[in-house]
Amino acid sequence: MKKKSTKKSELAIIKHISNIFGFPADSPVIKGIGDDCAVLRKDDKSCFLVTTDTLVEGVHFDLGWHPPFLLGRKTGAVNISDIAAMGGHPRFALLSMAFPGSAPAWLDDFLAGFYAILQQYGTLLVGGDTVKSSNDLSISVTIIGEAAENSICYRSGAVKGDLVFVSGFLGDAAAGLALCQSGLSNQGLGQWQQLFKAHLDPEPHVQLGKMLAESGLVHAMIDISDGLATDLAHICAESGTGAEIFKKDLPVSEQLTAAAGKLEKPVLDWVLKGGEDYQLLFTVSPDHEEDLYNLVIEKNKPGIFCIGKIIEDPGVFLLDSLNREEVSFQGYDHFTAAKS
Amino acid sequence: MKKKSTKKSELAIIKHISNIFGFPADSPVIKGIGDDCAVLRKDDKSCFLVTTDTLVEGVHFDLGWHPPFLLGRKTGAVNISDIAAMGGHPRFALLSMAFPGSAPAWLDDFLAGFYAILQQYGTLLVGGDTVKSSNDLSISVTIIGEAAENSICYRSGAVKGDLVFVSGFLGDAAAGLALCQSGLSNQGLGQWQQLFKAHLDPEPHVQLGKMLAESGLVHAMIDISDGLATDLAHICAESGTGAEIFKKDLPVSEQLTAAAGKLEKPVLDWVLKGGEDYQLLFTVSPDHEEDLYNLVIEKNKPGIFCIGKIIEDPGVFLLDSLNREEVSFQGYDHFTAAKS
Repeated sequence: MKKKSTKKSELAIIKHISNIFGFPADSPVIKGIGDDCAVLRKDDKSCFLVTTDTLVEGVHFDLGWHPPFLLGRKTGAVNISDIAAMGGHPRFALLSMAFPGSAPAWLDDFLAGFYAILQQYGTLLVGGDTVKSSNDLSISVTIIGEAAENSICYRSGAVKGDLVFVSGFLGDAAAGLALCQSGLSNQGLGQWQQLFKAHLDPEPHVQLGKMLAESGLVHAMIDISDGLATDLAHICAESGTGAEIFKKDLPVSEQLTAAAGKLEKPVLDWVLKGGEDYQLLFTVSPDHEEDLYNLVIEKNKPGIFCIGKIIEDPGVFLLDSLNREEVSFQGYDHFTAAKS
Repeated sequence: MKKKSTKKSELAIIKHISNIFGFPADSPVIKGIGDDCAVLRKDDKSCFLVTTDTLVEGVHFDLGWHPPFLLGRKTGAVNISDIAAMGGHPRFALLSMAFPGSAPAWLDDFLAGFYAILQQYGTLLVGGDTVKSSNDLSISVTIIGEAAENSICYRSGAVKGDLVFVSGFLGDAAAGLALCQSGLSNQGLGQWQQLFKAHLDPEPHVQLGKMLAESGLVHAMIDISDGLATDLAHICAESGTGAEIFKKDLPVSEQLTAAAGKLEKPVLDWVLKGGEDYQLLFTVSPDHEEDLYNLVIEKNKPGIFCIGKIIEDPGVFLLDSLNREEVSFQGYDHFTAAKS
């Protein structure tokens, strides 16, 4: 389903578009292309966050193993996650679908799942469009969120010395995808339940994102959609920094380790390069490390993990006791992704 | 490129989605699915208008004759037209593209055209997404516009006795498409320039839409994207009325008449059922007919044409001296459209 790549194709195209389209000085656009969402001034205090994403069957999902209800949930979740990554709350959604032939039989289940995730996060479907395609089934979603202007977290705020945190296990979604590709989803959820859920039905971290943003402790934040190696490189590129991540500190689930054994795959590939975990990745000054842990404990949130630090020199490096290897942008590239 | 159909597939799907997703009483959603745009409260006085649309190669456009620069313009224009149809001003755009293989060579020209139309109407590109598709090239655009809440024109305001107006010639875009399909675009623009432009490079009527909305004279408005027979039926369905249109009053260009002769096609099919003219279609009380003409003359706008009237009984009827024929929803259906 997906091919890892060191190419920066999607990044290159987005940068190219971003360079063509500039903003006038008096623009209400606080942030355009180049973060998880565009940030548009709403009033004196608050902003709208806007994000759009397209999923194509055979590239981004496979109905062979993806139940339509869960696909509907995931289609909403991956966009809501972009709002969460800036500390906002999702408010409105637009859904645009293109399918060949007539409306598929599973459309009702898909819509029920899409509705379920929107309702779970207080988001309203306000617009839509259905068109006929030539061959592909594709789904485009736009989500409009809201946040207080002074609490929004951008990719660009990381500072040398910051600690790098993630909100949970890495690589579970990639492992779940590999299990589905191996046909193991046909045997029921069983021992791989957590991995299947990570791939089929990921949860966006809206409450955590909002709490982190409103705490004022976070310098930079992104959600992990393209894999740690790529998404941390996005933070570094936008912040004019680099980062070191410590192999021993990467949070790896027991199920992932077992699945890697079963499928004879290297654990690190999934953890470092696997996309679609939708964990939050963020940086905090070491002076506020304790405040951060206290905040997380106080609010009874799931654990967070410190996995590295921000450095001055560019590039994302993976460190163990013997090696220091550059891994920048080695995650999943939605543009060069292809059927496997 | 397109197939006329009496099926209500797209309408049926949108209504289905609309029925599933309701709004709570305290919602900031003033209008959800079922008009040209969703209307979201921004502040005490103004609203955001949001619209999204997907175009698929081979269904909605053909690069065999559509120059990429003009396709870029049109991709923006058809969405901006939805904002114009409610009397708003387009502010922000998001562009999401899916293509098989690597980025196409014509992407720069396409983006230049998209930029040109956005700039022409003061619209800023704030977000985007590029992904790989399996087979199809598809383009999704979301436009966010703005309007004063008390001036927004909906489809639902038509009243029995209202006069029905259009902002210009009907069917030119369908005639232009037919000429392109016949291979005549290869012979240069020549005598069909106006028809080719209507198909390849339509202009959204932003200023006229805003002026009409702010005048307070208009009861209901829509842009003609699916053909007069379908778009007037949308106004009637949302307003709980019907309409009669007078064949002799339909504005038909000389070039269209000539093209119909050349291609041996019936004029009326293009005029009544041809989509993508992006003219504004609106209703005004007969008491204000003179005010409307005075307004249009005063502002030095292109002509408008009175083509019919709103009636109590449901259905859209075409009248000539001999017949009264129902034509509701006989226009272009983006969902059932297929390659020809």
